[in-house]
Amino acid sequence: MTTDWELSELDDRARELDAAHVFHSWSAQAGLKPLVIAGGSGCRVWDHSGASWLDFSSQLVNTNIGHQHPSVISAIHEQADLLATVAPATANLARGEAARRIVERAPSRHNKVFFTNGGADANENAIRMARLHTGRDKILSTYRSYHGNTGAAIVSTGDWRRIPNEFARGHVHFFGPYLYRSEFWATSPEQESERALRHLERVIQSEGPTTIAAILLETIPGTAGVLIPPPGYLAGVRELADRYGILVITDEVMCGFGRSGRWFAFEGYDLVPDLITFAKGVNSGYVPAGGVIISDEIAADFDENVFPGGLTYSGHPLAMAAICGALDAMAAEGIVENARRIGAEAIAPGLTELADKHTAIGEVRGEGVFWAIELVADRETREPLPAAGMARVKTDLLARGLLPFVQDNRIHVVPPCIVTDDEVAEAMAAYDGALSLVD
Amino acid sequence: MTTDWELSELDDRARELDAAHVFHSWSAQAGLKPLVIAGGSGCRVWDHSGASWLDFSSQLVNTNIGHQHPSVISAIHEQADLLATVAPATANLARGEAARRIVERAPSRHNKVFFTNGGADANENAIRMARLHTGRDKILSTYRSYHGNTGAAIVSTGDWRRIPNEFARGHVHFFGPYLYRSEFWATSPEQESERALRHLERVIQSEGPTTIAAILLETIPGTAGVLIPPPGYLAGVRELADRYGILVITDEVMCGFGRSGRWFAFEGYDLVPDLITFAKGVNSGYVPAGGVIISDEIAADFDENVFPGGLTYSGHPLAMAAICGALDAMAAEGIVENARRIGAEAIAPGLTELADKHTAIGEVRGEGVFWAIELVADRETREPLPAAGMARVKTDLLARGLLPFVQDNRIHVVPPCIVTDDEVAEAMAAYDGALSLVD
Repeated sequence: MTTDWELSELDDRARELDAAHVFHSWSAQAGLKPLVIAGGSGCRVWDHSGASWLDFSSQLVNTNIGHQHPSVISAIHEQADLLATVAPATANLARGEAARRIVERAPSRHNKVFFTNGGADANENAIRMARLHTGRDKILSTYRSYHGNTGAAIVSTGDWRRIPNEFARGHVHFFGPYLYRSEFWATSPEQESERALRHLERVIQSEGPTTIAAILLETIPGTAGVLIPPPGYLAGVRELADRYGILVITDEVMCGFGRSGRWFAFEGYDLVPDLITFAKGVNSGYVPAGGVIISDEIAADFDENVFPGGLTYSGHPLAMAAICGALDAMAAEGIVENARRIGAEAIAPGLTELADKHTAIGEVRGEGVFWAIELVADRETREPLPAAGMARVKTDLLARGLLPFVQDNRIHVVPPCIVTDDEVAEAMAAYDGALSLVD
Repeated sequence: MTTDWELSELDDRARELDAAHVFHSWSAQAGLKPLVIAGGSGCRVWDHSGASWLDFSSQLVNTNIGHQHPSVISAIHEQADLLATVAPATANLARGEAARRIVERAPSRHNKVFFTNGGADANENAIRMARLHTGRDKILSTYRSYHGNTGAAIVSTGDWRRIPNEFARGHVHFFGPYLYRSEFWATSPEQESERALRHLERVIQSEGPTTIAAILLETIPGTAGVLIPPPGYLAGVRELADRYGILVITDEVMCGFGRSGRWFAFEGYDLVPDLITFAKGVNSGYVPAGGVIISDEIAADFDENVFPGGLTYSGHPLAMAAICGALDAMAAEGIVENARRIGAEAIAPGLTELADKHTAIGEVRGEGVFWAIELVADRETREPLPAAGMARVKTDLLARGLLPFVQDNRIHVVPPCIVTDDEVAEAMAAYDGALSLVD
């Protein structure tokens, strides 16, 4: 029999090994006090000793289907018993079935999928395709964006695979729409949209349209603050891109596969992208996977020409089985519809009520299960709540049994798409309590 | 009951879905005829209908432990039942245990591991660490190398995470040693080593030592041709690097974890690297994973400073469990020792015998289970065997039931580390038959 004492030793052991040997992402390493997470189910996670938290982070906004969904876990078990790994140059049924399920959700003229290990290399390969398709090298993207952490390996590579990937000028950044902190002195969503498009067109003209391969955009910028595009903005981006012969890549890594309350976030915005990148929600990250959904026009470029990109784990069978399991369960159980309904009926009214009550809240915004609470020191000046205040809120939320997603001066409200009304009510009570500390 | 007919329909279905929806790595997409692989065990793989092949490719030189090793599969099952995924900011016992097992194999002053999804992002993060540690930006690597397929995502990112990763000058390539096709007019291994070092020093001096952060080297360049370093070369690289204040990163993605007949290939070459990158063999790719093993000196830079890199699936529990399962089984079953023994006692004599017999063989070289047969049209001029000849050899090997690894004008002899004497004999017979077509 395992005693409570032995279980708490496992927590100590996890912390001790972590401190000794694990180097953490995006962090200073000294004095990290990571939460031990040993298990989970649905919207909850727990440590070895039995402490548990309601997961309103979906980890890194990836467990769209919740933790340990039985259909995904059994798909992993079944594939693990057949074949865990296989080279990408082979044909594998799990890979074909995963690709079929993904393109069935995509626009009609998108029929091929290039699989990667995650979101960063999905964007890498979409950028590569756009550059080769257009013969141009610049990529425009917004300052308020995150597209992954890679930037060097193919350029350090010495063999021929380096050469078609050497782009000299590279990347140009512009400002996207964000009315609450407008870069354009706008006072309405319509004006923000119009002025942001005007700004983008001026950047295109100033950089030279014939040098620009693609505009790369998170459909709804995520880590930057769940920045819902104002009316007409994305349709306007598509129109500008078409006018100047530029491709549009939508990064659906965080906002795709149910997060917005739709299968893809762009479906809500009158925009058909040329390339769509995904990861996270496609299989809730149960096995690392990402990819690019490719338009027929771009895919045709590589019918006869070698595509100069690839990776060992492209179309990894275990990851593919997890995709099939996740997408089938999401469809069968109406999980995307649940995200849409709960966003409209529970999260939106809950957050509006909190915003009415707490002066620390500057704005709430979002859709589906993808929301941000923007905290301010002063509602008039919109000065962000300082880091010390954010840390107090985070500590208090954890003590209240809620695992939050805290980014800069914001709490992102990003539970799994399966979240229930009761769980939303429980989270709202926790936010309510914690926010009273910083009003 | 499933009939043979139904099974062959599964092969057709896999091919059909693949052609319709799967975009392949490093290929022109039209007319691909990928082998269907449905399952495997040990050194063999098979399709749905029951055709099977002896796998002397280890897929992409990654299944070091063979296919479907029961210890790794059961580690995946166990972890899948506990917790498939968790955010990197948490502490997780499987991650700590995997990191501990890896650093136990590493040099004594290397105690931390940063986990990635594969080899490309392992190199990305090693390069990032080297640049931040030295405050310099150039990375020297060889023309005959492959370090992964990424090069853009962090530069397209707009938020602050882009800024510490913007390096203007980038990458410089030099020639490494390769006596059979020497760039230095050398006629002995010693001379090749000495002249390659002289060339490297001249490149360092010409680029300016104070601009160079690191020399990035595959310990044994793999895809480039299993280029065993000549005596003194890697010790000389270390010495040059120390003299000029440059770091050494060894890319052990392909050559590490048993492939060379040692846990790390560099153990055979009198070189202690500052950073070591790995993927593939660490868990045989059963779940995508890679990482960087970090020296204490470099790790200390990030005790108080934020490390500007990270990824959602860093230290993914399922991948970590597969690492623990694989490394424990490799140790318990003497799998690395088997690779060393079989390289010396079976593969080396077998390939030497083939080289004596077949005029198409220009050179054989390697160690452990990491060998190349270099095929030539003419032994005197060393002109590579043309692509049509290589295609004939490949087709014939498949027909003989051997899945080969063919790269340029070479066959890489890269079976799993668990390969038996009988399997090596079977492969040698297949190579013998196929090579008779091109003598």
